[in-house]
Amino acid sequence: MPGIRSNILSMAGYTPGEQPRDGEYIKLNTNESPYPPSPRVFDAIREALTNNRLRKYPEPMGDTFRQAAAKVLGVSPDQVLIGNGSDDILTILTRTFVPEGGLIASPTPSYILYRTLAELQGARFQTVPFTTDWQLPDPWPVAIADLTFIANPNSPSGTVIDPASIFRLSSRIGTPFVLDEAYADFAESNGLVNVGEGNVVITRTLSKSYALAGIRFGFAVGPEPLIREMLKVKDSYNCDVLSLAAATAAIQDQEYLRETRRKILATRTRLSASLTELGFAVTPSQANFIWARRNDRPMKPMYEALKTRKILIRYMNYPDYGDGLRVSVGSDDEIDVFLIELRKILNV
Amino acid sequence: MPGIRSNILSMAGYTPGEQPRDGEYIKLNTNESPYPPSPRVFDAIREALTNNRLRKYPEPMGDTFRQAAAKVLGVSPDQVLIGNGSDDILTILTRTFVPEGGLIASPTPSYILYRTLAELQGARFQTVPFTTDWQLPDPWPVAIADLTFIANPNSPSGTVIDPASIFRLSSRIGTPFVLDEAYADFAESNGLVNVGEGNVVITRTLSKSYALAGIRFGFAVGPEPLIREMLKVKDSYNCDVLSLAAATAAIQDQEYLRETRRKILATRTRLSASLTELGFAVTPSQANFIWARRNDRPMKPMYEALKTRKILIRYMNYPDYGDGLRVSVGSDDEIDVFLIELRKILNV
Repeated sequence: MPGIRSNILSMAGYTPGEQPRDGEYIKLNTNESPYPPSPRVFDAIREALTNNRLRKYPEPMGDTFRQAAAKVLGVSPDQVLIGNGSDDILTILTRTFVPEGGLIASPTPSYILYRTLAELQGARFQTVPFTTDWQLPDPWPVAIADLTFIANPNSPSGTVIDPASIFRLSSRIGTPFVLDEAYADFAESNGLVNVGEGNVVITRTLSKSYALAGIRFGFAVGPEPLIREMLKVKDSYNCDVLSLAAATAAIQDQEYLRETRRKILATRTRLSASLTELGFAVTPSQANFIWARRNDRPMKPMYEALKTRKILIRYMNYPDYGDGLRVSVGSDDEIDVFLIELRKILNV
Repeated sequence: MPGIRSNILSMAGYTPGEQPRDGEYIKLNTNESPYPPSPRVFDAIREALTNNRLRKYPEPMGDTFRQAAAKVLGVSPDQVLIGNGSDDILTILTRTFVPEGGLIASPTPSYILYRTLAELQGARFQTVPFTTDWQLPDPWPVAIADLTFIANPNSPSGTVIDPASIFRLSSRIGTPFVLDEAYADFAESNGLVNVGEGNVVITRTLSKSYALAGIRFGFAVGPEPLIREMLKVKDSYNCDVLSLAAATAAIQDQEYLRETRRKILATRTRLSASLTELGFAVTPSQANFIWARRNDRPMKPMYEALKTRKILIRYMNYPDYGDGLRVSVGSDDEIDVFLIELRKILNV
């Protein structure tokens, strides 16, 4: 077809997890929170509906949010970049640092969007297999990448890379090094300490731990010289009045975040134990999902049988690695139903 | 600086119109609506705050909005693409159709974001001066552009191109031809009839006529084969639950749109007449702003003096064309204050 870039025409496009409009499903497939966002979020949105704010453009840089986030995270507001979901941030990173024909590197198996972002940019994509215990190989076998994406905690594994090796690798690489920390609020460590004068940018989302997948809000924290260039690439008004209000209220309620985290981690422990008992190999998770595998029977039919029973989980199959089931940590009631139905399917 | 694309590093970045947080300004600088959005918008947002919708991902394609828009516009839902503001749509168009080193063409003076989009993509940008009566030169002096942007109505002029010449040019060009119709709801004609099997894509925004600049919502209408490719480029969830609810409610209230339009057009007539009387050359406008020029005294000091008096308008200065004042059509009260202060500044 004339006029369409060949890299776009040849690509399949990224397929996000299923989002059925039928509210009867138990959704354990896209790592949404089973709990509502902080009550302060609703107050902030209702307040933003007053004073003619809908008809006026939002703050282009989201300065109110930047200040709130900087205070919570102990960084400078100028180190923070707002995004329409962390997908927007990942797109901005790619467009700022990767030319057509450039190279993006990432460990595998990991978030498959990174490959899509490389394809969209007309760039090459090099994957590096994780070691068997989900760490990075040393030495890192990529010559010079324009951009390196490390999901940490990783999906689908839920694992975290040893902080010392993150520090070593990022210093050695020199080019922009992204820690995609969508799930960091559920982990025991994060990469914020690595953000300084160097090349490390971390990305966060409010979709998971803050229960705001519906409002699309993410942000980056990075060295000011890199954030300054990324600001040129973002759309002028990439976040709207209501999502900015919601995100600011959410990040200011750290007490609520801690309580949500506590509940999800308790349920995660129970879910992992139950799946282990049912014969799955469960990878110890530092995220709000678990990764379960088994060799004695095929897993895709389990995903399908669960779907028939109105329970959605994620069946993943990676080249050169194999398949498994990724199950979001739902509420205790949701996980109870999931386990009951899974036991029926497994006949145990 | 290592790691940053040279096209990004060398560019200045787009500067949007001023958005003072001080609510005391009369804002006539960014073509926002002086009237609130439809009351149905507020109902829809409040309804979307229930049923756990904030914590779940939105509809990836915005199917509910697509169906509503298709019905209003008389097209198929598959011809509609949703965007996080029409800036998002313009970015998607660039990334789908323009390779690095490619060419974007656009008449001048026009929306300066088009040049920024070319710079971001590492593409060339060729401008073609409008004729003195704001029409397109025939023949069109661009060899082969990967993408052509025509703001119609145009900013800053508020003028519309003769529909027959749009049709002629778009057929002759063959490559994707974008009519940026941000202001079409205020005009006497639009390009919807040109959208068929060919190469014409129109873009619309809810920021202006629907008074929803704060929620960031725009859309494209185009041939299905082009929309299908653009879908690969957009972020999976580029519009959020609340903006989708707001946009759907807004576009379904055509009665309210007509009433808002009627009021704005009446004020536009009065504003144009008053500025003409004050000695400005006012271009007949089909948008929600007017473009006023004069040779007998400098205009930048007028902009500055108005700003001191807490009235923001836009001073524009284009290479090879000259300068002028762009004034958004505010409410009658706002325009009264603007004219009173302008008369004081002009000493008449």
